[in-house]
Amino acid sequence: MLRPSPALSNIDLPPSLKELAFQALKENILNHQLRPGSVYSEQAIAKKLGISKTPIHEALTDLEKRGFVKILPRKGFQVNRLTQKDVRDMFEFRHSLERSVLLMVAPKLTEENLRVITSMNDRALKAQDPMSFLRYDRGFHLYLASLTQNRFFIEALENIKDLSDWVGAEVFAMKGRAKEAVKEHAAVIEMLRKRDPEGAAKAMTEHLRITERRFLEKMAESEKKIEEALCDPFTQRAGPIGP
Amino acid sequence: MLRPSPALSNIDLPPSLKELAFQALKENILNHQLRPGSVYSEQAIAKKLGISKTPIHEALTDLEKRGFVKILPRKGFQVNRLTQKDVRDMFEFRHSLERSVLLMVAPKLTEENLRVITSMNDRALKAQDPMSFLRYDRGFHLYLASLTQNRFFIEALENIKDLSDWVGAEVFAMKGRAKEAVKEHAAVIEMLRKRDPEGAAKAMTEHLRITERRFLEKMAESEKKIEEALCDPFTQRAGPIGP
Repeated sequence: MLRPSPALSNIDLPPSLKELAFQALKENILNHQLRPGSVYSEQAIAKKLGISKTPIHEALTDLEKRGFVKILPRKGFQVNRLTQKDVRDMFEFRHSLERSVLLMVAPKLTEENLRVITSMNDRALKAQDPMSFLRYDRGFHLYLASLTQNRFFIEALENIKDLSDWVGAEVFAMKGRAKEAVKEHAAVIEMLRKRDPEGAAKAMTEHLRITERRFLEKMAESEKKIEEALCDPFTQRAGPIGP
Repeated sequence: MLRPSPALSNIDLPPSLKELAFQALKENILNHQLRPGSVYSEQAIAKKLGISKTPIHEALTDLEKRGFVKILPRKGFQVNRLTQKDVRDMFEFRHSLERSVLLMVAPKLTEENLRVITSMNDRALKAQDPMSFLRYDRGFHLYLASLTQNRFFIEALENIKDLSDWVGAEVFAMKGRAKEAVKEHAAVIEMLRKRDPEGAAKAMTEHLRITERRFLEKMAESEKKIEEALCDPFTQRAGPIGP
């Protein structure tokens, strides 16, 4: 019987200051409160969160390694702006991971596992806003990873999903995309129900291919808007570039 | 034309104190100067390396995330002892990554790429000791990853290769294993030369399957030795457990 690994279950230990700082910063990046391209001071963030600079700096080191920020010595940190190449690389990697996960777990799924994954997808369909859709979408993908009981797959997918949700929040605000994604997930579940690993992996490939295309379209759109804002002298000061 | 990504080429910036501490600690863990199961004080390590505690602590946070150590608040840090499950999970993940890498790069390899990879394997064959064998072996696997030009694959494989070399240093000291590994690499190169992606991936699967088996055999052997030492009252104090 496959169970989710401990990595995804509740932990008893209280989170450290660094973990709190990491979660707070990551959330603010994912929901675009901290904006791509902008520079922020560690001191100001520390003051705002009411903790010392050390855990903030440690959390930023983590976020830098995960691709979210760039630390600027003596100046603070800059929130990264993902390029189209970053997104393509991200999806290439994510596709490789998720395909392997499905090939590993599909032959061993229990009825209970199928029930959980179906209910996550149902809840994603009923989500009222992009952020709660993303929560269930994350649940769908990471629950499958957790069934591998292999921490290397779980951690790699957790990280790549964070990066991908960063762009995803905007994409899933697009009319109809969330519903489309739920249908694509349902195709994966259908193949899992038939215990067809290759079929499930193919359905996932299709889902990720469409998601990637939507991401790239949305990015091209945002980049065009930024360019227009920069060319228009009246909106230049309100543009999203710079602190 | 495929070129190695910048991630593997020389960098111009001098390394930070944290990077120096990270490299020094990692090297000492990989060559077993810092021993699995033993507890060390951050203060003592800082003194030994002649730098302050902050970069040491930052480096340890990194090493903890990568699976090498466990930070013990107010006590120091403990070097992890990999379990058989860790090794199996590691190889399952590594296999997924390296298979994807080969399927991606095989169709696009240039003659120059093939020349480089062949020369790395030739140098591995001529290596005089396990540590230099591991250096060329690392070169072989990471050069292939670098040709994807995808930083997610490159970073994931760099990290998993470090963990795997940690056990590997002992395995490749085994008579004959290094030569066997070079032959298995040659089978991968042969398929790459034929521009046969699936054939190359299969040869890599075979190489990793044998390597994993040798790792697990070596671990079982070491564990048996530890157990015997613990059962023998005369050698108990000299056993490899504890600081």
